[in-house]
Amino acid sequence: MSGRLFHYNTLGTLMKGGFDGAFTFEEVLKNGGIGIGTVDHLDGELVILDHHGYRFDVTGQIHEVHLEDTTPYAAVIDFIPENKTTLNEKINKEILEEKMLGQFSSKNVFQAVKLHGRFSKIKCRSVQKQEKPYPDLVDVARDQAEFTAEDVTGTLVGIYTPALFGTISASGFHLHFISDDHHFGGHVLAFEINEPLITWQTIDTVEQKFPVGDPTFMKTDFDYSSVLEDIAEAE
Amino acid sequence: MSGRLFHYNTLGTLMKGGFDGAFTFEEVLKNGGIGIGTVDHLDGELVILDHHGYRFDVTGQIHEVHLEDTTPYAAVIDFIPENKTTLNEKINKEILEEKMLGQFSSKNVFQAVKLHGRFSKIKCRSVQKQEKPYPDLVDVARDQAEFTAEDVTGTLVGIYTPALFGTISASGFHLHFISDDHHFGGHVLAFEINEPLITWQTIDTVEQKFPVGDPTFMKTDFDYSSVLEDIAEAE
Repeated sequence: MSGRLFHYNTLGTLMKGGFDGAFTFEEVLKNGGIGIGTVDHLDGELVILDHHGYRFDVTGQIHEVHLEDTTPYAAVIDFIPENKTTLNEKINKEILEEKMLGQFSSKNVFQAVKLHGRFSKIKCRSVQKQEKPYPDLVDVARDQAEFTAEDVTGTLVGIYTPALFGTISASGFHLHFISDDHHFGGHVLAFEINEPLITWQTIDTVEQKFPVGDPTFMKTDFDYSSVLEDIAEAE
Repeated sequence: MSGRLFHYNTLGTLMKGGFDGAFTFEEVLKNGGIGIGTVDHLDGELVILDHHGYRFDVTGQIHEVHLEDTTPYAAVIDFIPENKTTLNEKINKEILEEKMLGQFSSKNVFQAVKLHGRFSKIKCRSVQKQEKPYPDLVDVARDQAEFTAEDVTGTLVGIYTPALFGTISASGFHLHFISDDHHFGGHVLAFEINEPLITWQTIDTVEQKFPVGDPTFMKTDFDYSSVLEDIAEAE
């Protein structure tokens, strides 16, 4: 059991408007076979698949990121599917999460999850590009755009975060989606799928990166007092 | 500005009685020029200095750890003193912490601190070796042994943790001490020192290690609901 998750800055700081891109995708994609996150100025939802980065903007359009583009927040891993299972039933997001918790090696470590299949229904969201002064993400998420698709084949990628790390990541499951035809995706809100094949990997090391080259991040006095509630509402 | 902190498991899990040694000092000392932590069964307070590990037991005795000994929790770094300052006054622990916060590159990233000098007074604590079933650390700390020394020369080592990471480490400063003659040390509760020379290093990466080989850790359902309050009381 091993796997190294690269965590670029924190969801906590993103929640408090830390939207400036501080890490290049050249660095991120080197370490990320699959992953989630966003891009500079919070200009959409990021899906990383096969070491390529795709962002879905607030209109639902997809754009492949360039190596010189930057991200303020991403969680990525060079995924090795150590474990797999097929759930022999029709499931939704809540059932997937409950079933996976029963099969994980532990709820106390991070786990990386990948699921490819045909979804009878899937609902995703994306967020609007922001300009300074940046608002909190919880306020941006209240105006999020939501998209629903039916009978779409694609890949769900995501991270399970143990409770103790709920201020820097989203406690529990954080899932993003990209369709095989690259026409649909984003941050996953809900889905239904029949008999999915799920793969996952236990993470024994998290490499937490801080944007020490970003003067705004370094000097900002963030107020994290509501961060757990904000993550619960926005994610 | 760069430095890689190796964080072996979390203070949050240690607070909830995760006292079994899961990482060997062979691994820890390879990555740790300076550091803090404890040892298997919570048998005292750990100071790492010059890639050697020393534990102070509850009677105040010092023991150098062996490479095959293990730790349930440690925070270590191969320290490179990028920054230094002399405070031209008599200071105590609270003043040191306040002054350092004013000089750090950021309060939003981890910082490693080292201070060598002659302390007019210093108060340390250690904790009692525990047997299973392990209690919470907050209960052990209520019975801690406290030791005070005067006019003692030695080294303070420690970690500053940003607020967002307060569930996995101790938010703010976590300092341990070892005297040059190896007769006095432990977890630092208070001190006074004249005109100290302080060195520190900004940390851009934290390598968070989980004890995935420890079945007890992996399968325990920890209740972290009081972890912030417990750390504030015990640390």
